[in-house]
Amino acid sequence: MLIDKNISTPLYIQLYENIKDMIDKDQLKAGEKLPSIRSLAKKLEVNNITIVNGYKLLEQEGYTYSIKGSGTYVKPHNYGLDTPYMEDGDIELMIGGILPMSKDNINFASVSPTPEIFPVEEFKQSLVEVLDRDKGNAFIYPEINGYKPFRESISIFMHENYNMNIDKDEIQIISGGQQGIDIITKTLISQGDCVLVENPTYSGAIAAFKSRGAKIIGVPMLKDGLDLEVLNNRIKRYNPKLLYIMTNYQNPTTYSYSEHTKNKLIELSKQHNFYIIEDDFLTDLNYSKDKKTPLKSIDNSDQVIYIKSFSKIFMPGVRIGFMTVPQKLFKDIIRVKHTTDISSSGFLQRAFDLYLRKGYWKKHIENIKKVYTNKYNIMVKELKKLYKYGVTFEEPYGGLSIWLKLPKDIDSIDLYNECGENNVSIVPGKIFFINDTIYSNYIRLSFGAVSEEEIIHGIRVIENYFKKTYKEDNNKYLPFI
Amino acid sequence: MLIDKNISTPLYIQLYENIKDMIDKDQLKAGEKLPSIRSLAKKLEVNNITIVNGYKLLEQEGYTYSIKGSGTYVKPHNYGLDTPYMEDGDIELMIGGILPMSKDNINFASVSPTPEIFPVEEFKQSLVEVLDRDKGNAFIYPEINGYKPFRESISIFMHENYNMNIDKDEIQIISGGQQGIDIITKTLISQGDCVLVENPTYSGAIAAFKSRGAKIIGVPMLKDGLDLEVLNNRIKRYNPKLLYIMTNYQNPTTYSYSEHTKNKLIELSKQHNFYIIEDDFLTDLNYSKDKKTPLKSIDNSDQVIYIKSFSKIFMPGVRIGFMTVPQKLFKDIIRVKHTTDISSSGFLQRAFDLYLRKGYWKKHIENIKKVYTNKYNIMVKELKKLYKYGVTFEEPYGGLSIWLKLPKDIDSIDLYNECGENNVSIVPGKIFFINDTIYSNYIRLSFGAVSEEEIIHGIRVIENYFKKTYKEDNNKYLPFI
Repeated sequence: MLIDKNISTPLYIQLYENIKDMIDKDQLKAGEKLPSIRSLAKKLEVNNITIVNGYKLLEQEGYTYSIKGSGTYVKPHNYGLDTPYMEDGDIELMIGGILPMSKDNINFASVSPTPEIFPVEEFKQSLVEVLDRDKGNAFIYPEINGYKPFRESISIFMHENYNMNIDKDEIQIISGGQQGIDIITKTLISQGDCVLVENPTYSGAIAAFKSRGAKIIGVPMLKDGLDLEVLNNRIKRYNPKLLYIMTNYQNPTTYSYSEHTKNKLIELSKQHNFYIIEDDFLTDLNYSKDKKTPLKSIDNSDQVIYIKSFSKIFMPGVRIGFMTVPQKLFKDIIRVKHTTDISSSGFLQRAFDLYLRKGYWKKHIENIKKVYTNKYNIMVKELKKLYKYGVTFEEPYGGLSIWLKLPKDIDSIDLYNECGENNVSIVPGKIFFINDTIYSNYIRLSFGAVSEEEIIHGIRVIENYFKKTYKEDNNKYLPFI
Repeated sequence: MLIDKNISTPLYIQLYENIKDMIDKDQLKAGEKLPSIRSLAKKLEVNNITIVNGYKLLEQEGYTYSIKGSGTYVKPHNYGLDTPYMEDGDIELMIGGILPMSKDNINFASVSPTPEIFPVEEFKQSLVEVLDRDKGNAFIYPEINGYKPFRESISIFMHENYNMNIDKDEIQIISGGQQGIDIITKTLISQGDCVLVENPTYSGAIAAFKSRGAKIIGVPMLKDGLDLEVLNNRIKRYNPKLLYIMTNYQNPTTYSYSEHTKNKLIELSKQHNFYIIEDDFLTDLNYSKDKKTPLKSIDNSDQVIYIKSFSKIFMPGVRIGFMTVPQKLFKDIIRVKHTTDISSSGFLQRAFDLYLRKGYWKKHIENIKKVYTNKYNIMVKELKKLYKYGVTFEEPYGGLSIWLKLPKDIDSIDLYNECGENNVSIVPGKIFFINDTIYSNYIRLSFGAVSEEEIIHGIRVIENYFKKTYKEDNNKYLPFI
């Protein structure tokens, strides 16, 4: 490493750039520990403060993370992303194929379904039928808010499934759930506006809010939804424009809201005049008789902007979803959608419409629920074997993930690295938290993209880590059982 | 109209809200003149200044426009859009079916092609073949920057067609050209940053820049591209982050850049360190032997971000395009694309890829060029008949529009309204200008969506307007011939 005292660039910036460069070139690898401040200062013959400032800048810029009392580490899968919230995005990058993932990897990181359960044949039928029926018209610009018959189908579908009364004219078709968040953010958020979010939450939403300069305030997530007392205080203190929630099988906690909490949310949003974004990507996947309903189903005052993504329950590559639009915001949202991408593919909307009208949807959901129920049961059974190491979790009876609490002394990044070396991908929980330094003992394990055998094998890898750690340091924690 | 002096809302705001309401409810119609300031002040028993302020607010909020010395008018197709730039958006809303357009309308407003010339059969073949070949994999998340084989096809395609050397890894797939502009804006523009644009230009781009709080500065558009002298001054004065241009058959002027101006642009962008967005949606449509090439073809220093939209030359409902990405911005753009909509439909990318690989593209372009050449020739021939009324235009020998300069005393909004009454849609030129009050005597006539017969009939409607106006007021202008 070269620090040149004869050039005008401040020394800590030279240090920053040197290390950044090494990380970019993969000379320093994810999880690797940087030298201690003292030792590096001595070696480079500079002040401690130079190293402190350089390390601070690296962390700010998203290249490293620090663990109190332990040191500074290179972030996993670093892409020079400038916000700590984007690490989940990194995992999406990995899943998306930008970052390589070995073929024989056991992928507990992805919430996406595997292609074998996609309803390809039925959807193909719909695609071909649309082309034969509509010919060139299948490819004209659809209305900006979406192809009308498709909006009608959705209106019927939501009524039948969730007793939700939304008119076709209250629906805006979007190119997936993320775009819904992006459009609402552009419509409602200006620099400095406050957005309340569940803590922990989906990092893609945080990234969208941040891109418009929002002030993001977390509210702790309890087993029956947001902590209402804290929520109340935060509302009064920050006067939020928006509250972003996932009502059922929340990501990453897998918790679902109680009826009580849902009613309170509607009440508070009316009283304090903020909108609630309800991001629904999993409600359909319940594995017990307790069928969940969205918050939107009890919204009688147009306070909830309901976003429906089909990526996790249908097929991610279609990129079509919808959101409901409060009457007051209709014109603004149309305009923002137009500025964003004119409209979503009219062809895919027509095909999806036909797919719904043919009644294929219901069959598909029943089908995937069978597959997922099996995987869910196996995963829960296997994970219960980890109780004896102090691991705990709630059983969500739905969704695509389990949220695992590790014993206090275990750092999820350690476990993440260990798993990585054994070709198992997991998501360290801390990347979902607003202030990610204080919560380090959670991991999210998803079963959407793994086979039943892989679940068993993958959890064995995790167990081995506990066994090893336990063996190495008998005092580190006391097994619960 | 009710103005209540006993409530605390300022009188001019009450006035504003009253009129706004009447416009929203269509009690005041597009083009209708508001009462004069004096007469309304008298009638409502308030000060002139109250009316002046109320009218000012209406104009600021996009409900009205004023013509110096004439008065204040209700804007056409008003959707309460809060920026004067969005009127072209309104026209898109109309085309998109949000605003009604009668079936037997002669549509000179739309640059979109008509469904009859879409290559539906060939694209269907590709779609079906992809499904048979890839099955469920056709619907997985593609890489965020796009399906790799598709990026390869594009790289080859651009090399063969435009001698453009871009690697597959310099390509980002986007959901249409507008999304490209949105993504670049999010990546590069913060509140107060300066963006230079051609004046007049595409209002959808302006809307995207404005949504990030950019300061937008226009540079006059000459027949061989931007006015270089003015450009030079503006660069020095405003230190722009971006310059947004359409190199060939610019919208709305139809002008194309000379080689000299193109070279100068590259030079300036290097010297003053700003990026150039080249929005290319029409280069392929030349109707003479003079084949145009994009600016990107001579960009040897990664200064040009080239956006390719296929909406106007392929099919708008597909919503797939691409942009080139400077190496330095790659990570940022990936991140922004992910925050915006995760990725563009992988299924459509696969189908489009196969379509290109099968060589259908070349055949399609040859095909539509024949159709458009005919329409172009007819339109030019018919428009020459308007020379005698003082109308002038340049022949672009390409693209999908003609940019008509009207005699000085003709207001394009007048003509727009008159055409509307006769079921002919045209685009008033002023909506493309940054400062839209000073240029009122242009209109854009597009021939993408009209038949040859409609061209003849529609231009006759326009001619009748001139005849009538000429008859009514012999002194208004002197015919040139």
